[in-house]
Amino acid sequence: MSSKVLPLSGFPELLPQERIVEQRFLDVVREVFELHGFSSVETRAVEPVERLLGKGGDADKEIYGVTRLAARSQERGGSDGELGLHFDLTVPFARYVLENAGKLDFPFKRYQIQKVWRGERPQEGRYREFTQADIDVVGAGELPAHYEAEMPLVIADVFERFPVGDFVIQVNDRKIPEGVYRGVGLDESVGVATVLRIVDKLDKIGADAVTEQLVAAGASPEQAAVCLALARIRTADLGFVEQVRALGVQHPVLDEGLEALAAVVRAGAEHAPGRIVADLRIARGLDYYTGTVYETQLLGFESWGSFCSGGRYDALASDGRTTYPGVGISIGVSRLLGLLVGKGLLTASRKTPAAVLVALVDEADRPRSTAVAAALRARGTACEVAPSAARFGKQIRYAERRGIPYVWFPGAARDTGGDEVKDIRTGEQVAADATTWECPAADRRPSVTRVEPAASTGA
Amino acid sequence: MSSKVLPLSGFPELLPQERIVEQRFLDVVREVFELHGFSSVETRAVEPVERLLGKGGDADKEIYGVTRLAARSQERGGSDGELGLHFDLTVPFARYVLENAGKLDFPFKRYQIQKVWRGERPQEGRYREFTQADIDVVGAGELPAHYEAEMPLVIADVFERFPVGDFVIQVNDRKIPEGVYRGVGLDESVGVATVLRIVDKLDKIGADAVTEQLVAAGASPEQAAVCLALARIRTADLGFVEQVRALGVQHPVLDEGLEALAAVVRAGAEHAPGRIVADLRIARGLDYYTGTVYETQLLGFESWGSFCSGGRYDALASDGRTTYPGVGISIGVSRLLGLLVGKGLLTASRKTPAAVLVALVDEADRPRSTAVAAALRARGTACEVAPSAARFGKQIRYAERRGIPYVWFPGAARDTGGDEVKDIRTGEQVAADATTWECPAADRRPSVTRVEPAASTGA
Repeated sequence: MSSKVLPLSGFPELLPQERIVEQRFLDVVREVFELHGFSSVETRAVEPVERLLGKGGDADKEIYGVTRLAARSQERGGSDGELGLHFDLTVPFARYVLENAGKLDFPFKRYQIQKVWRGERPQEGRYREFTQADIDVVGAGELPAHYEAEMPLVIADVFERFPVGDFVIQVNDRKIPEGVYRGVGLDESVGVATVLRIVDKLDKIGADAVTEQLVAAGASPEQAAVCLALARIRTADLGFVEQVRALGVQHPVLDEGLEALAAVVRAGAEHAPGRIVADLRIARGLDYYTGTVYETQLLGFESWGSFCSGGRYDALASDGRTTYPGVGISIGVSRLLGLLVGKGLLTASRKTPAAVLVALVDEADRPRSTAVAAALRARGTACEVAPSAARFGKQIRYAERRGIPYVWFPGAARDTGGDEVKDIRTGEQVAADATTWECPAADRRPSVTRVEPAASTGA
Repeated sequence: MSSKVLPLSGFPELLPQERIVEQRFLDVVREVFELHGFSSVETRAVEPVERLLGKGGDADKEIYGVTRLAARSQERGGSDGELGLHFDLTVPFARYVLENAGKLDFPFKRYQIQKVWRGERPQEGRYREFTQADIDVVGAGELPAHYEAEMPLVIADVFERFPVGDFVIQVNDRKIPEGVYRGVGLDESVGVATVLRIVDKLDKIGADAVTEQLVAAGASPEQAAVCLALARIRTADLGFVEQVRALGVQHPVLDEGLEALAAVVRAGAEHAPGRIVADLRIARGLDYYTGTVYETQLLGFESWGSFCSGGRYDALASDGRTTYPGVGISIGVSRLLGLLVGKGLLTASRKTPAAVLVALVDEADRPRSTAVAAALRARGTACEVAPSAARFGKQIRYAERRGIPYVWFPGAARDTGGDEVKDIRTGEQVAADATTWECPAADRRPSVTRVEPAASTGA
């Protein structure tokens, strides 16, 4: 095969040791999602381009079209219509729900961990191919609000079980800004969506510019001041309710929003204390959110942006007769690990699942070493047999290079002719029987460690 | 979102209960691959079309090209050159090895479980998007032959642990037919590759047609008879050596092949008795195999073809200075499960990971039910809380529809005010404490059962 190999910008690939970190993370994600009763779904990688184009703003710039090479000369796409790679997991899930509505039980809790593709210009932390891990609950016709409180608890559970470092999930309810804007009459002069869009730029352009743009759009300076005051409210407890009330604005939609967000924050305080804060600046750009919205930040890496976002939408999908409301949240797996693995903050203890290398006395003795390996595997210990009967020193280096902690020596005990196993980290070598030996729990699988930036000199 | 939803032919998607079967299978596959010391690798979905086109015969007809929609009007592909979706996992792995050769430790044992895409005409058991699970061992410069014996043992281990039914792994060594063909002089008259290609059609066209084609290609009737006699040899033990010797052909390449295949069959007899048979008809179409080749059949479904194939290749990749020999085998996951799930022969015991539904007395009592769920999850039991405080009968039906075996009733014990849990299959309801209750091991996760075709009336 040809020798010209170049990495493709935006299509990251991991080395085996980095992949072990990703696998461990995805194991935790899946375990937590399943503990919370979410069912796994996988959708095909392609959707009709027509379906993809309708969603997500300027998505048309980002879509990868897919065409059979053999069909290009004749017609593009063929009988299936033109196809494109999905750019998120929400659009295909909405289609899956419509396609299988008669066979699914609602409310339907599903998780989906898959690659998605976007043809954007690659930059740090932004990829053209990346993995997302989504949960959504979707109802047929209606969806109780308590699921909006459950979503961030699931996410907090994931990040309590995997050493990403300190994180905070910021929540808001779209009805709160909407209620306030309507309460001060901005819905008639400027429009709720326009105000949301301008206030959403607060972090980027600052308060003065936001005020300027609001006024330019038709708001009074007093109205603009209320919008900014609202966006500055952030509390880890129910204090936000008082602070919003203190703005002196009245509107039934605002009342609804405050009650809904209070329920989310209350559940957070009980089940994930310190992890969930009300932040009334959070809006999420997408138009289809109608209730709670979520963003997640890693403390110390706020500039990296949210690596886990979502919200409530009243119309995930509709077939004209039934509307399917939903609430969902999506972990940007590649984005998060691109940061933590890329900066060396998460490392795996070895490059292979193998905990033991079974040494080889000579090639004719391979059946004995293979039998040892089979006995170890039967008891759940991952292992491999040395590739060749090289000097033991060389066999030990084979294990060292891969981070395999134990080397097994068949028949090494001079007195009994029994086996011995050596912990090559300590040098300790003891008698052992493959049919009874217990690999220490900490070594059974590669371990993943969070390295603090200051202490990054270790292994 | 639009209501027009149509399945795409060749892009199968599973319902949640079917997906549970697939997940369980992939869990077993991964567990066994890791027990044998294979490291996980994932490669990007796309490769330069140029790289894909060089491989796999008429692959150009099957490749899906990938282009940014926004780039189409200007230029096709852009600076990265034209891209296509990979059609197997071997081509991208070979590229990965070359790209990362300096960072990998050889011999390198990797597994890879990913989707692949082929633009072929879809038909039963053939998809345009499907999942493969590959293992390969690749060496730098050299690769010991014992890895050829290890491959089918790993596969046998997978299928012993997952209830697919009876299977057999058929092995051959390319050097045996090559040695025989050369021993009778066919290499000079017809050519080894041509003879292989014709004999490979034996199952499809029958012995007479094979003889005819061999003779037409320049073989004598006697030479053709030897080829056919060789292809009919099939033994579950070392008997094939005698039978080949009885053909009376002599060639050093034949000697090598017999010795190599004997080692594979001997290891199989020891570690996977009854699962590995020498079948000298197996050739595998691909030109690059140079040693052992593998095919796997499900007994009773032989017409479905091989669902797990591979072999030894002396040049998986080369960078001009180093050649990387390898041996690998690939499980056609979608193909196998498409048969077993599609025909209803494998079923999951429920549609969700949840083992328990925590009932809800009334909506105001939700915090108590949520606390029960949290306690169950902390001890590893997947569960969910009822979506609404409907009548208990309706809540039980919610669990029944999904196959959730237990319903938990907070505060149901009239005397103590404690909780009770009901096995809704038996109706048995007992007192229980969420902080100590053990979900029976058999119910912790959905179970997967092989249903015999004749007994397919059961659940």
